[in-house]
Amino acid sequence: MAHVAIPPVRRKRPLAKRKRRVSQQDMRKITKLLAGATALFLSTSALADNHDIAALQTKALQDDIAYDIVEGLTTEIGPRQAGTEAEARARNWAVAKLKALGFSNVRNEAYLMPTWVRGAETASVISPYPQKLAITALGNSGSTGAQGLTAELVYFPTLADLMAAPDGSLDGKIAFVSHEMKATQDGSSYGAFGPARFVGPNIAAKKGAAAIVIRSAGTDHHRNPHTGNTNFEEGVTPIPAGALSIPDAENLVRMIERGKPVELKLVLTPQNIGEQESGNVIAELPGSDPSLGMIVIACHLDSWDLGTGAIDDASGCGIITAAAKHVMAAGQPKRTIRLLWAGAEEVGLWGGNAYGEARKGDNHALAMESDFGADRVWRVEFNLPESAKPLADRIANALQPLGIGRGQQPATGGADVQAIIRNNNLAVIDLQQDGTRYFDLHHTPDDTLDKIDPEQLRQNVAAWTTVLSIVGNSDADLTMPPKE
Amino acid sequence: MAHVAIPPVRRKRPLAKRKRRVSQQDMRKITKLLAGATALFLSTSALADNHDIAALQTKALQDDIAYDIVEGLTTEIGPRQAGTEAEARARNWAVAKLKALGFSNVRNEAYLMPTWVRGAETASVISPYPQKLAITALGNSGSTGAQGLTAELVYFPTLADLMAAPDGSLDGKIAFVSHEMKATQDGSSYGAFGPARFVGPNIAAKKGAAAIVIRSAGTDHHRNPHTGNTNFEEGVTPIPAGALSIPDAENLVRMIERGKPVELKLVLTPQNIGEQESGNVIAELPGSDPSLGMIVIACHLDSWDLGTGAIDDASGCGIITAAAKHVMAAGQPKRTIRLLWAGAEEVGLWGGNAYGEARKGDNHALAMESDFGADRVWRVEFNLPESAKPLADRIANALQPLGIGRGQQPATGGADVQAIIRNNNLAVIDLQQDGTRYFDLHHTPDDTLDKIDPEQLRQNVAAWTTVLSIVGNSDADLTMPPKE
Repeated sequence: MAHVAIPPVRRKRPLAKRKRRVSQQDMRKITKLLAGATALFLSTSALADNHDIAALQTKALQDDIAYDIVEGLTTEIGPRQAGTEAEARARNWAVAKLKALGFSNVRNEAYLMPTWVRGAETASVISPYPQKLAITALGNSGSTGAQGLTAELVYFPTLADLMAAPDGSLDGKIAFVSHEMKATQDGSSYGAFGPARFVGPNIAAKKGAAAIVIRSAGTDHHRNPHTGNTNFEEGVTPIPAGALSIPDAENLVRMIERGKPVELKLVLTPQNIGEQESGNVIAELPGSDPSLGMIVIACHLDSWDLGTGAIDDASGCGIITAAAKHVMAAGQPKRTIRLLWAGAEEVGLWGGNAYGEARKGDNHALAMESDFGADRVWRVEFNLPESAKPLADRIANALQPLGIGRGQQPATGGADVQAIIRNNNLAVIDLQQDGTRYFDLHHTPDDTLDKIDPEQLRQNVAAWTTVLSIVGNSDADLTMPPKE
Repeated sequence: MAHVAIPPVRRKRPLAKRKRRVSQQDMRKITKLLAGATALFLSTSALADNHDIAALQTKALQDDIAYDIVEGLTTEIGPRQAGTEAEARARNWAVAKLKALGFSNVRNEAYLMPTWVRGAETASVISPYPQKLAITALGNSGSTGAQGLTAELVYFPTLADLMAAPDGSLDGKIAFVSHEMKATQDGSSYGAFGPARFVGPNIAAKKGAAAIVIRSAGTDHHRNPHTGNTNFEEGVTPIPAGALSIPDAENLVRMIERGKPVELKLVLTPQNIGEQESGNVIAELPGSDPSLGMIVIACHLDSWDLGTGAIDDASGCGIITAAAKHVMAAGQPKRTIRLLWAGAEEVGLWGGNAYGEARKGDNHALAMESDFGADRVWRVEFNLPESAKPLADRIANALQPLGIGRGQQPATGGADVQAIIRNNNLAVIDLQQDGTRYFDLHHTPDDTLDKIDPEQLRQNVAAWTTVLSIVGNSDADLTMPPKE
């Protein structure tokens, strides 16, 4: 890198203050200069570190550990719904794997949680165009009973249309909510269109609907419906709630547009089977300096029952574990790195919440999570104290050779570290994965090993190895300012 | 096109004879010269015809009739398995549609056929890695009974491996046949890998297997198994026979490769429900000269029960019908064009065979079929009498603006015209469609409207319109030489 003369003023003022008075164009110039400046400020030891990081990245880009974990979990366990015997088998598998990889303090921390399980699920148009539709029940759906439920559909092109329906207008009917979810790299369309699933059933129930079917919250065109939890308010009796595959939802819209009333028969017979045991699997790479707060890195071990949970979230467990292993192989870090393979994420963050309560007394400094598939990391975001800005800059620079840019939003962490972040006011780093094809597969039978691109998976491992190595060996104070 | 001097010798010798003594390189030169020659030989009226053909193609490239037919059949009927009430509804739909489009002599010609229908279908690995697998029964599969069948798997990477298994070595076991089918433009990989389905179950039954599961004969990676008929020899009792989705078959191979015995539980409860009514729907565009043999153009109306039969074969019916309609709109042709929307193709060519018997006394000249999806025509092939070579050349030239090349194999026609071709020794023209993604969808739940590319569908219509217009208005003698 060429030497660059840095105007003194730019070196003396913190970035946050300058940001308030410079234009976007100025910002771009400053960013360029700062990249040069960062290189100039590196000490001899930091330059040596950069060399080490490059070597670690090279090694991580040849990683097979992450793929082996995904392959093992999907082949030897497969679907592992929270609270079931399959999730328990997965915990045993995880404990054995983490021990075999050389991690310390490997343990299973159990808790109880109410458990809902799928039953029969079929949907058929009775009239005017009889044919079967591919459907799956949403988590927490009520049951139609084995005899099923036949009723006329009321069509809502969007969730807003359902919300605008007069109270009582749905009495005895089946609400059908469609939408136009499209793929987005940052996954933001799930936030925009997911609510049809998250809250649509509760709204329909409150308006008197006998049942609800939604267009799956997904972006593919296969006959594989997308399941996922829905939630009913206290006092609202859960109604049968199912997701149609996208081709089926489109077919239903075409039928409705022909103008005749459409009658649907639904058979959904899920059950609540009471409190069952679930648990978190925890393992550690102990640091040399216990006074420095630990880094907790999370994925979730449970999956939905339809697929084998390859992208959601065996890949996350593979990524964080492989990265920690590469750091382990490079020599003991200063900070402890704790792996949390959380249980029961899909059905209500039971594992993450249990961890956040049980472990809030532990000395945490930073939380990170991988739970957005196996495609490449494209952006890094930070939520660190102002004083740790040089650390963030160093990380962002070190990630650039992996094709990773820097985002301007504050990092927020994944679902399983929300409780510990909230309880302990933790610093966070997000390695954002490319979500363009994530919602083709999310919560469907199609979430299987063959969807994993080993090269992109390795890039994830390299990015995580980079961050864990730099933060794990940094004694920067990561204490966040008190929340306002 | 520039004028080209043609060496006299090349004009005087029939192509078939020259082919025997020229190299491939020479052939390419000759082909170029012949293309120029053909243009020179066109009469003034042929040039006017060329202008008409271009106008017809322009119109056909804006076609909506074919898409409307696919949209209508998939939305208003959906799956229409042969011998079922859904196929009967489809015939009524077809009769109404063909009448509405202005075709003549629209009728339903019924026949009876033995009918097999699907029941429950599940597969679960019992040990060592318990999980469910996505399976579907093959047509003519035996039943496990409702209680199911649990047995150890015997793995055969290819059909040849199954064939090599010693007699008796499969007693009481479930055979599992895998393969490595890949996509091919001409669909030839189905011929190479399809036999695992066509004959694998019969072979396994004869070797004493209790059941068989195969990797679906397909090229996708979705959890949608590919059904399709299998056949058992007279005297061989059908065993339960299922196809696993490709991700499931791959998962099973990974389990097997870990070295422990793999036990599978199968529940497949299909039934034979005896003789049921099926039928062909026939319609005509009457020609002005009944002495000229008619052109019979076929598709099939029945579909497998898992999908809505968009690419197999609503699109074929849409293509041939739209093309005949464009020819109708351009003025009465010399030859009658007869549309055959055949019944019961998937389950044993019952419709095509019934047509071939019932209609062999009719004055046919040429047969064509569209039954390979909705993607573009890329190649034309002929089986015409030598005397009709100028007609073939003219057709091949007229198809070039649509991006269609000329193949060197003799045309053979589709499944539904096999009987009439054989019985009446008919001339054939094949408009070969691009099959690269056909076996991603073939016989799966994923065969739905959204897979149709309207632009490619229109190119098909334009190609068919071109051929029907040229042959329909040609009085060339299409009588084939007697078979040797």
